[in-house]
Amino acid sequence: MKKLLSAVFVTLTLGACTTTEQSSDISSDNSVAPNSQSSPKNIIMIVGDGMGPAYTTAYRYFNDDPTTAEIEQSVFDKHYVGSSSTYPAKMSGYITDSAAAATALATGVKTYNDAISVDTNKKSLLTVLEWAKQQGKKTGVVVTSQINHATPASYLSHNENRNNYNAIADSYIDNGIKADVYFGGGWKYFIREDRNLVNEFKAAGFQYIDDYKQLSTLKLNKPVLGLFGDSGLPWALDDKEKHRLSLMTKAATKQLKNPNGYFMLVEASQIDWGGHGRDIGAAMAEMDDLAKTIAFLEEYVAKNPDTLVVLTADHSTGGLSIGRKTAMSNKDIHSKYLWQPEILRTLPLSPETFAKTFANNNLTLQQVNEVLKFEISSDDMALLLQSKKEGIKIYQQLSAEQKQKKWAPKAEGPILIAIKKIIDIKTNTGWGSISHSGTHTAVDVPVYAFGKGSEQFKGQIDNTDIAKKIFTLLGKK
Amino acid sequence: MKKLLSAVFVTLTLGACTTTEQSSDISSDNSVAPNSQSSPKNIIMIVGDGMGPAYTTAYRYFNDDPTTAEIEQSVFDKHYVGSSSTYPAKMSGYITDSAAAATALATGVKTYNDAISVDTNKKSLLTVLEWAKQQGKKTGVVVTSQINHATPASYLSHNENRNNYNAIADSYIDNGIKADVYFGGGWKYFIREDRNLVNEFKAAGFQYIDDYKQLSTLKLNKPVLGLFGDSGLPWALDDKEKHRLSLMTKAATKQLKNPNGYFMLVEASQIDWGGHGRDIGAAMAEMDDLAKTIAFLEEYVAKNPDTLVVLTADHSTGGLSIGRKTAMSNKDIHSKYLWQPEILRTLPLSPETFAKTFANNNLTLQQVNEVLKFEISSDDMALLLQSKKEGIKIYQQLSAEQKQKKWAPKAEGPILIAIKKIIDIKTNTGWGSISHSGTHTAVDVPVYAFGKGSEQFKGQIDNTDIAKKIFTLLGKK
Repeated sequence: MKKLLSAVFVTLTLGACTTTEQSSDISSDNSVAPNSQSSPKNIIMIVGDGMGPAYTTAYRYFNDDPTTAEIEQSVFDKHYVGSSSTYPAKMSGYITDSAAAATALATGVKTYNDAISVDTNKKSLLTVLEWAKQQGKKTGVVVTSQINHATPASYLSHNENRNNYNAIADSYIDNGIKADVYFGGGWKYFIREDRNLVNEFKAAGFQYIDDYKQLSTLKLNKPVLGLFGDSGLPWALDDKEKHRLSLMTKAATKQLKNPNGYFMLVEASQIDWGGHGRDIGAAMAEMDDLAKTIAFLEEYVAKNPDTLVVLTADHSTGGLSIGRKTAMSNKDIHSKYLWQPEILRTLPLSPETFAKTFANNNLTLQQVNEVLKFEISSDDMALLLQSKKEGIKIYQQLSAEQKQKKWAPKAEGPILIAIKKIIDIKTNTGWGSISHSGTHTAVDVPVYAFGKGSEQFKGQIDNTDIAKKIFTLLGKK
Repeated sequence: MKKLLSAVFVTLTLGACTTTEQSSDISSDNSVAPNSQSSPKNIIMIVGDGMGPAYTTAYRYFNDDPTTAEIEQSVFDKHYVGSSSTYPAKMSGYITDSAAAATALATGVKTYNDAISVDTNKKSLLTVLEWAKQQGKKTGVVVTSQINHATPASYLSHNENRNNYNAIADSYIDNGIKADVYFGGGWKYFIREDRNLVNEFKAAGFQYIDDYKQLSTLKLNKPVLGLFGDSGLPWALDDKEKHRLSLMTKAATKQLKNPNGYFMLVEASQIDWGGHGRDIGAAMAEMDDLAKTIAFLEEYVAKNPDTLVVLTADHSTGGLSIGRKTAMSNKDIHSKYLWQPEILRTLPLSPETFAKTFANNNLTLQQVNEVLKFEISSDDMALLLQSKKEGIKIYQQLSAEQKQKKWAPKAEGPILIAIKKIIDIKTNTGWGSISHSGTHTAVDVPVYAFGKGSEQFKGQIDNTDIAKKIFTLLGKK
């Protein structure tokens, strides 16, 4: 296996290659060795997709124990080191997408929105993962999206457009297998009618798993592809393992352990999807999975102090605001500014799954309250029932052909909008985006770091600085 | 004058005094001297009221030079040291008001919303300004609100409710004059029918000015009260001196210079008012005045390295988001996420003043474009005219008595809402608050520091930590 990896491995230099990667005619360069004194052996780069400062702050209050007098710090707080700007190459304005931001984080170069580790001239850019592999380290990606989504793709591949999902999946084989561990979703891209990439990974020596339970029975010293969902994984709120990111990360650290160390990308991909959906319940549950991952890594770094952990976001999403309206309470005139996350702490399913459940069953108000684990009013119930009617009407008006389309309106669509509105009003959560699909925003994002070399990341930095610092820690001059 | 100040000066210990301050029976304690080796001689504490991370980030892009390939850093960026949580005492929930936050910044103690440097039991709390005075330093406050507004009041006074404006103004005399420099607004509170506090300040040895021009002709070594507006100062966009905060700050540093050093509070008070008004034009102009103030202080600290400057916000306001809607441009498919501040850079007057102008004149579309220095569409013009009609109708329906009330609807109200909407759409700016008066939000706020002792403020801190660190730098044990 090792032989195969080195044989097909691609060496790229900054801005030097063409978009179509060539695997055989560029040899690996191992001449620059990392400085073992100041450089960590293992580097774990974590991206909270869409995790702007409102998300990390909201999580502190979501996570607060209401029975104590103080506000508890979150697991993120003590590792805070600074803030990062996220703007893309100037041709794309001031607001980045996940592809340009991941390219900046992976390569240290600003590019246009939609670009997967190619520059503004569509030339391939060397990524920190590729460079780490060239230095003899193991590499891995652990994400809750499909493994060929923008962020992991920007560490593993090069493509002029993030939406070329199949081409990006194909490149994971065709341009050389670049990682030893792939955990995330993506059956629909990796097991296709035209090509079965899972079988190709197996033929290349990989073990393949498709159930979280198998994470505990993996063979060590054998690369692994683990796909646990058709596209992205289910929402944390709906998944059989609510803390699946921490579970996968834990397993990955075991698989990647080796004398030369490793580089691993971890992404809490679906915080962003919560933001796009303007869904505070889903977003907080994704944050909670990330928090558990950080808590595990704190223990891991304590036992493996030669490890660096860096966490940041690619951008913020949806204009989340912790406070929507000045609510004057009759009980306490001082509490006119309120955010009330109580119902989020016990939410047992995603609003999306609730909407499907409500669409397909005739639930009473009492049953709705049992399903949601909080109480809605009769007015809220009337809104849900009205939304159900609307949804059915819209769906019935679609032609059979229209119903087949990927973005066809769903019968439960209006119910989903209604239940999210009910939750926003109850929690007093606001969204700056005015459409039902929240947009990205340009606000600077927090940077957290701990372990060896973490002091490098403090203060006001740019997303490109993160890749530059990781390259330096990996011995690149 | 020095004798008068020390004779009436109040010494308070943390939580030990009653709400009604006693000036004569508590003696000053000068026993704890600051450590001159590690402590700065001068401390300048700056509050950007409402200046959450979206404001500081937006300012970078507002301030960007569109003719260069790169994005220029703002004057804030290089002084970034960390982030602060802002939550009030738990009885007030997770979102602070300016009073509780200013109390935390001034005293190091969490309290309830509305409290002016009293604790949750309404006991007075010693402030860093009071302590600095006790240590023989000069003190000053420089703000763009009225000088008895929540933030300056929390450094200078103690009151169970921020809305007791007259009582707070009276306390500036009655409980001992605590500062040598007061610059800001407040004629209506300081020159009243029942009491003329300006004359009382004069009788206590103060020089009084009411025009910015007089800032350059002040006598040194003589305390000064400068009031430049009836309540708060005019918006930066409308004021005859658009950079009046930097102008006042510059003058204050000259007045406060003395061998023992000084403590000065500076507040860019009206960033928050821009946020409440959901007015990105006004907010960016207030940020620009603050930026000029920081630029001046950079030079000042270079010449006076024994000076510490700390800048933070008390909270964020309005749920500002830099990006409102995913805008698909026909010209460039990559630019689907956009914030477009171009028209803000040249805005020559506040939307409020525009609304009054439009209400009181029959402007043509061309004249509107000339007044605004950007072009609106004929649809925009129709919206403005419709709003004017509505405003007149609403105003005509008010009784004479209703028209006298402070919060009576203004004839120009609907025009103001319309022009801000036009600006939001043109710039693609979003607001998370759903009412027309934006609420406070709980997002953590940035902390900037430079000069002697600035390394103390780095990382994730709490607003109470800022006062605690300043107390320590001022020698309090």
